[in-house]
Formats: sequence, C-alpha cells, structure tokens
Amino acid sequence: MRASKYHINTLKEAPSDAEVVSHKLMTRAGMIRKLAGGIYTYMPLGLRVIRKVEAIVREEMQAAGAIELLMPVVQPAELWMESGRWEQYGPELLRIKDRHQRDFVLQPTSEEVITDIARAEIHSWRQLPLNFFHIQTKFRDERRPRFGVMRGREFTMKDAYSFDRDEAGAQASYDIMYQAYMRIFQRLGLEFRAVAADTGSIGGSRSHEFQVIADTGEDLLVYNPESDYAANIELAEAVALASERPPARDALERAPTPGAAKCEDVAALLKLPLTRTVKSIVLATDGDEGAQIWLLMLRGDHELNEIKAGKVPGLDQGFRFATEAEIIEHFGCEPGYLGPIGTARPVRVIADRTVANMSDFVCGANARDFHYTGVNWGRDVPEPERVADLRNVVAGDPAPDGKGTLAIQRGIEVGHVFFLGTKYSKALNATFLDENGKPAVMQMGCYGIGITRIVGAAIEQNHDERGIVWPMALAPFQVVVCPVGWGKSEAVRSAATELYEALLAQGVEAVLDDRDLRPGSMFADWELVGVPLRVTIGDRGLKDGVVEVQARRDAEAAKVPAGEALGEVLARMRTLA
Amino acid sequence: MRASKYHINTLKEAPSDAEVVSHKLMTRAGMIRKLAGGIYTYMPLGLRVIRKVEAIVREEMQAAGAIELLMPVVQPAELWMESGRWEQYGPELLRIKDRHQRDFVLQPTSEEVITDIARAEIHSWRQLPLNFFHIQTKFRDERRPRFGVMRGREFTMKDAYSFDRDEAGAQASYDIMYQAYMRIFQRLGLEFRAVAADTGSIGGSRSHEFQVIADTGEDLLVYNPESDYAANIELAEAVALASERPPARDALERAPTPGAAKCEDVAALLKLPLTRTVKSIVLATDGDEGAQIWLLMLRGDHELNEIKAGKVPGLDQGFRFATEAEIIEHFGCEPGYLGPIGTARPVRVIADRTVANMSDFVCGANARDFHYTGVNWGRDVPEPERVADLRNVVAGDPAPDGKGTLAIQRGIEVGHVFFLGTKYSKALNATFLDENGKPAVMQMGCYGIGITRIVGAAIEQNHDERGIVWPMALAPFQVVVCPVGWGKSEAVRSAATELYEALLAQGVEAVLDDRDLRPGSMFADWELVGVPLRVTIGDRGLKDGVVEVQARRDAEAAKVPAGEALGEVLARMRTLA
Repeated sequence: MRASKYHINTLKEAPSDAEVVSHKLMTRAGMIRKLAGGIYTYMPLGLRVIRKVEAIVREEMQAAGAIELLMPVVQPAELWMESGRWEQYGPELLRIKDRHQRDFVLQPTSEEVITDIARAEIHSWRQLPLNFFHIQTKFRDERRPRFGVMRGREFTMKDAYSFDRDEAGAQASYDIMYQAYMRIFQRLGLEFRAVAADTGSIGGSRSHEFQVIADTGEDLLVYNPESDYAANIELAEAVALASERPPARDALERAPTPGAAKCEDVAALLKLPLTRTVKSIVLATDGDEGAQIWLLMLRGDHELNEIKAGKVPGLDQGFRFATEAEIIEHFGCEPGYLGPIGTARPVRVIADRTVANMSDFVCGANARDFHYTGVNWGRDVPEPERVADLRNVVAGDPAPDGKGTLAIQRGIEVGHVFFLGTKYSKALNATFLDENGKPAVMQMGCYGIGITRIVGAAIEQNHDERGIVWPMALAPFQVVVCPVGWGKSEAVRSAATELYEALLAQGVEAVLDDRDLRPGSMFADWELVGVPLRVTIGDRGLKDGVVEVQARRDAEAAKVPAGEALGEVLARMRTLA
Repeated sequence: MRASKYHINTLKEAPSDAEVVSHKLMTRAGMIRKLAGGIYTYMPLGLRVIRKVEAIVREEMQAAGAIELLMPVVQPAELWMESGRWEQYGPELLRIKDRHQRDFVLQPTSEEVITDIARAEIHSWRQLPLNFFHIQTKFRDERRPRFGVMRGREFTMKDAYSFDRDEAGAQASYDIMYQAYMRIFQRLGLEFRAVAADTGSIGGSRSHEFQVIADTGEDLLVYNPESDYAANIELAEAVALASERPPARDALERAPTPGAAKCEDVAALLKLPLTRTVKSIVLATDGDEGAQIWLLMLRGDHELNEIKAGKVPGLDQGFRFATEAEIIEHFGCEPGYLGPIGTARPVRVIADRTVANMSDFVCGANARDFHYTGVNWGRDVPEPERVADLRNVVAGDPAPDGKGTLAIQRGIEVGHVFFLGTKYSKALNATFLDENGKPAVMQMGCYGIGITRIVGAAIEQNHDERGIVWPMALAPFQVVVCPVGWGKSEAVRSAATELYEALLAQGVEAVLDDRDLRPGSMFADWELVGVPLRVTIGDRGLKDGVVEVQARRDAEAAKVPAGEALGEVLARMRTLA
C-alpha cells in the first residue's frame, strides 16, 4: 500500500471521553471514529486489524471442526420468549418493533436462533456432534458504554455452539474448543491466561475465561505459579489461613473505640494487627414471612465475594444488603460496631473459613464506639451456623491445590467457553433420536470470542508512550518503508520503491510512505500506528550504502547494507512473529 | 471437506412461500433457513457462496483504489435528520430507540455516516479523491419481503462512496467504479448488462444499473443489439414510431362502441388495428388553487411510463391518478370512453410522441359506449399542449441512437452506481479547502452491490430441473468426489480419498462424500447443491481402471483412466472458469 493512496489520519489529541490507553491510541492512530456512545466506525487501519483477528479465529475454529454459518442480527422475539430470556434479559437487550409492530431484538448472542436451527436440522444421533459458529455484529445496550471498543454497544463477536448426544460428548466438544482457544490466543501473539470462571446467569456447570493480561484489565486472575491452577477471582477458592483454630488465650474485653467504625481504625486504635479484626457484613433475604437477616463475618483485611456468598445455602435464591433500619432493629446498633455477641434479635451467622479458625479476635460490640477484644468461638459466641468460602483470594494465599501460594494479575476477558448442558435445548425442545430410536435432548456448549475487544486488549498489553506496539500477527501493516526526502531525491525514491515492491513480492504486508513528510512526522505516525518494523532510507545512508532497520520495540535503528535490507527484514519478521 | 464432517441437509420440498426458483433451490439445497419474514440464516453452504462474492467484490474494489472500512449497523437519528432522510424515508427505514429513548436507525445505506466521516477527516484538496467502501449488514423493512434473499429485509450490501474536488473528478471516480463493476460481474461468471438508469429519489445526475440477465427478473432492460445503447425501461427513450404525421384522410365519426371500454375491445369491434387507437390516461396535480387535470394520450398498445410522466413540466413536482369523481366532473363521462374532444371542462393535453404523429386515430367520445374514429390533430382537436416521451419502449421500437431496433430482456438489479453530486455533502456541510484555500463542497458518488441478492440472481440465471448450476467462481465447492460403495469397498475408499487429497493439495475446493449414501441420493444432493464438477468412483469402473468425470451441465459422464482423473479435473476447471 502506498500511504498517499490510503487514508492515514493520526490525531495529536485523544478524545476527552477516553479513559483507557487503547481507546486513546485507537482514536489517535485513526483506527476508530466514534459515531454514537459505544458505536464506532472501524476506519481502514482498524478494520485491517479486526480482519486479522477474524482470520485467525476462523482458521482455528474450522481446524477444530466447527462449521461457519451466519445468523441474522435482527431476531424475532418469539424465540427469546421461548427460552425465557425475553423476560430475564435486562435493558441491555435492545428490543425493536418492525413496521407491523412485531417484536424483534438486536442479537446480543444467538443461543435461541442456533437452537431453533438445531431442532429443525438435527434429527438423528448420527448427525452429532455438530459445532456451528458465526462471526457477526452484536449489540448490547450498555448503560454506560466506555473504554472504546472494549465495552461498546455494537461490536463483533465470534460465537460458536456445540451440540452433542450426551454429557461426555459435550465435555469432549468443550475440550476441543478450549484447545482451539489456546491456539487462537497463542497465534494472536498475546500474553493470556485461561482461568476457570463462574457460569453466572448463563447457567451450565463449567466455564473458562480467556484473559489477555493487562494492568488496566477489570478482571482479577488468580493463579498458582507452581501449578496450572488459574481462576477468575469470582471463582478462585480461598482456603482458611490457619489450618486449625488456636486455643483461646485472651479474656473477652469490651474496649472503647470511639469513632472507629472501620477495622483499619479499630486495629490502629487498639494497636493490634488488622488480621486480628473481624468485619461484620449484614445481608437480608426476603421470604413469605418477611426478611431474614444474615451476619457474614470476614477477617478485617478481606473482601466479600458476592458470587461466593450467593452460593451459600439460604442465600442462593438471591440476597441483598440489609437496610440501616433492619440493622438497627436486629443489632440494636448502627453499622460500624456490629458483631455476633448480644444482638437485639437472632441473626444467622456465617463465618468465612479464615474467621472460623481465628481465636482472640476483635469484633463490634453492638454498641456505638465499642468493640470486643479476645473474642473466641464457642466460649463468647456460639459456633457459626455455617462456615463458607466468602472472600476474595489475595496474593500470597495458600493455593487450593496445596502447592505454594497464589498470585494475582489483571486481565481483560476476550473469550469465554461455557458448558451449557440442556438449558436452551430443553426450553426450545431441541431433541434428536438416539441409537435406540428414542428422543433425547441435545447437550450444548457455547463459546464466545470478542473480536473487536481483542483489538483493544492487545493495545492495553502492547503500547508505549509513543503509541501502539503490534504483535506481528495483528499489525495492520507488517513493515513500513520510510523514505527521507521522497520529494527531493530520485535515489531515495527508487531505493524505497524497489524495497517496497520486493517486500510485496515476498507476500509482506508493506506500506510505502510516499507522502513526502518530514521524518519526525512520518516516524511519529508509524510509531503511533504501531507497525512492527520500519526501514528508513535516506540520501545520507545511501551514500554509505546503508539503510536503517528498526523494530518498533528497539531503542535505536540498526544500519544494514542496502542490498541486504530485504533479507534483514524477512529475518526480523520471523523472529518477531 | 469431508461431507460427513460438514452440514449437508437437502430438502425434497420447497417452502410454501417460495415464489421464485432461487428461493426454492436455496432452501432445498440447505443454503438458507428462514428465521422471520425476509430474514434468513445463511447456512454453511450458503455462506460459502456469499464469501466468494464478497472476496471478488473486495478485490476489485481495492484494485480500483477504494479503501475498506466498516460503518455501524446502528446509526444515530441526528445524522439522518441532518440529511432530511429521517423525514423523507418511509417505513422501510427501521427506526429504533435505545434504553435512553434516543432515536437510531438500522442502516439501509450509509450516505449520512460516510459524509459525517468525510467532513471530519477530509480537510484539504490534497486528500482527494477518496473512495471508501464497506461490506455490511443492511436492513430495509420491506412491506412485503419475498423472493428469498432477493428481496429480504436483512441483507448484505457492499456500498462505496467517492469524494472528489469537482464534478470532473467525481465523473472520473464514477467511471472507475463503472469499470470495476464490469470486472466484478465478469469475474462472477454471470451474464449481465450495464444499463443507464433513472436516478430516482437518490438524486444526482447520472446512474447505471448492473443487471443479471434472467427471465424471472423484475426489471426490463432495453438494449440495441447493434450498438452499446442499453437502459432500464424506466429510462429508455421511446421515439415516435412515425417520423412525421401523415395527412388526414378519414372524416371524424362518432361510432357506437357498446361495452368496449378498452382499446383492444374497441379495435376488435371496429375491425381496426390496435395501433389506430389512442388511450386516455387522466392524471391530477394538486396546487393551491385545487386540482389540475391532465389528459395523457398514448397509442392503444403502449403503456404509460410513470417515471417519464413525472419528468413532464407541470407533473414533475408529483402527480396522482385522477379520481373517478374528478374524471366525471372534467370529461362528463366515466372512464373507458374518454378523449380530448368536447370535454366538460378544460384539461391539459399531453401527447406521447407516437400519438402526436398519428392521423385518423380512434379515441373516446366522452360519452358512454361511444368513440370517435378518424380523429386528427388540428382539425378535430387542438394540437396537444405538449408532446413528450410518455411510454415504455417495446421490442422492435427504433433505437434512439438511430441504428436498428431495440430488444428487451429481463434482469435482476444487483449493482447500482450513482453520481450524487452535492446532495449529501451540502446537507451535512462536508467541505474542504481547495487549492486557493477556499472552502468547497465535496462532490460525491455512491456505488452499491447487493451481495446476497447476487447469490439469488446467479441461481435464477443458472439452474435446471435438478437444481443449481453454479459458475465455477461462485460454487460452494468446485469438485465433489462421489465414491459408490464407500462403506463396502476398500479400493473405492482409497481411490476416492487419494483423489480428494490430491485435489486439496492443488488448492481445489473439493468435497469428498464419505456419507456412504446410495448413488441416487448422493448424486441428487450434489446436483441440487450445484457443484460444477463431479468425479464418480466405483468398483466396477476401478476394475476397468476408469473413473467418471461429469460437469454439472453435461448430459452424461465421461470415462477417464483413473490415473488421469486429477489432470482431467484440473483441465475441466480451467475451461469451466
């Protein structure tokens, strides 16, 4: 591509609403232009990167036996009513009416449509397993779209759906997809991690997320550097920090803690480590006989994991945080000084695993400005009704697989595989005749990759103060030839053009910057755009018979004999790939 | 591809709502499945064909210098209000509201968005010309979607938009696109014709349609077999069938024509040729002073061309057919016996060119069951206020370029190029600084290709009673290897697999039918799907050292030595391409 024939339009300023570096750099590099909140035009450079992601995803999906089709963006409401999601899905599901006032949705995913296709197309066990995928425009009407293409409203997703005869088959399909995803993210050249994840509202029994590692990621990934254990913090198991409860040594005392409503303040005031304090979190569940109040107890330095709380029997049908009125009614005290001892009315106490094995701890005395110290289970307060994993893992926690300690890093979720089971196939009655001629419900899996989000995530992971640093596999162009003095020097023009054409002939995606810019502007453009390799050709170098080759990550350029430039670039491309 | 690993699901029956052969065959071949009216899932075989069309279109667009980007499906209403199309577009424009009750549309085309991009991105004459295109999902909420993918609601279109400094530049961009379209349709292997077309509501001064020739097409294409004149019947110029008016010979007579309200009946009753009769068509225009009534006169065997009528001064701001009450008021007679002689109130008479040069003609007498014969302009009725081209061309008409006579064929519109001028750039104030540093409005063109419609049109043109007959360039698979007795014969399995793998190694898109079907079902499937070349391998042939090669259009198979099968297939592919 000759730059003069292409549309290169870099900007000095990032948009004012850009909070993350990928949003800033994609806009500045001319990859995207905002059309409306969360809705972007993919400009030529941006589209080139998206197409690269799509091609790799498509190849690996097909290599894994998945078959591509294309389901519509606009889908009839009837199918969404059949699955129940018409009711369950919140306002993120964009509902529309056609000219005849019939209800439709803009697809956020396609479980309903593919299950409708499966029930029409699949009759016999002989047709299974089958795995269909498409790469299609999705729409989710986010309340607050942000982070550019990472949380847009209109975006491109690859979604695949597997159909199997039984759970074992579905598990095998899941594993094939898991391996395909591993290859996809390896080929994309991104540092990533597959982590076990909560299945959430989509249901099913097994799920993994594929996370691109980036400090700016919203997800916390827990992993064991000494094993292959890895899970999203939502799911990662926290073990008790003491294997058994030490014997009580201190007497129970009521200590004044004026104004110390937080564990940190209490610990400072009492000159005790924060790890001796226990915080009280009050939840409520609503039933036919009114609200039930629950007291969850976590160590002062730990954080509640609401997803784990939602799995505790009694809380697993939905819970909420108690209101201040409910707290005062049950504890006889305002929040900040709560604890299990001497509540005004009975509450159900659930202790985190770590708290259950603590002795001589500190907790609120259910009186403003007072805490108890030297609290011990069984002696001062009844044993908790239940001990559960309630907290988020923190770095340094013992690994649940018993080897070493856990580490945490941040990630951006770019892929997700779910074992769905029969959630949709049962609702839509997608059955087949098994080997005995009897109808059986298909077992399903679903597998998503956020194509456009990958582009943003790749930039979050690969950038510097000058701009984007593309992995070779994603670069919009692999090599840029930068002639210094294009307009003035015939020697420069012909050397640059010759190298450019030789690169094209080798199948290299090269761009020749024939815009006759000053070197500073020219280099700044390509560093912002993030082209992995640059060859600079100028009169001065040509006089000495050399050109300069510089990888985007290199601190400085290497001088290379002009005649060896092509070979040098091809060699560098192999090492950068 | 091994058929057992793919999803081949042919149907014996066509859907009951399928009116045209492409809709029937695409459904029966398993290329599409209907999701809702005018909304289809592209099944794996269908998507393969669509991707082939897309690839050819993309390559030729890029070769012509157009730059690909991707504009969103969901577009904010504000831009459509700016262009005026929010008001002008009828219910085919699907209008939606997001969760914040803001107005959006699902794009039917992208003039507004691309013009918005152009005004933000293009500042200087140095950046022009520029031509952007995208291949994207479109939505038009057709009142009555039908013909499968040929008039769907959701469909895929390539739309390109050129921006130029001046009209001459825009004309050059238009010509480049015209030539690119010629190459695209040639490469697709379709019989097509580029015809001059009316610019219609999209405005602009020049337009060509690209029409795939098919008997089932809705458009009538007028062309001169002896020159390169070709136009849509909407636009094709009809010349007077006599170069000058012959002298009057007959006297005016009032002839009883009881019950003969149509020219055909009048001619039969009076034993005169239909070409002596003149029909009266009554139009009305509405103005501040009430309705104005117009009498349009066409020869009895000719048809009114409403687009031409709409270009007559006085009718060019919009017209309607007069009501029966208006007709009775102005003619003193009900429809069926109307004419220009002795109207009850004055009407404005417009004669078609042919009628203007007629003598001794027959027309209604403005009295029930009576016509005049021997009518002559000037003598019996004043000369018409205006003579205009009002009728559709018919086959055999003299060509407007003076060489020979016109022929007519039917076509399906699959591409359209428009010279837009400043229609959108003016409305959206898309200006640039010209060479003198002065702001100037960009000149635009727009260029559409209906990707999914091409698939249907190709089938309308290329099918027989057994199914689809794909041109090589569009075929979902180029060659099918059909082993007879796959399950029984090791020799058949190994010979078929060997040929299949050799074809893949040559880059041929081959499919191996390893489903172990009976030959009749297997052949019927692939004839329905329309794979251009079939190689049949069976035990009987192998004993004689031969396999059978048959092109989809061949009446019978040719026996080929098994060792030469690969070479034969490759040679046939070249001749079929």
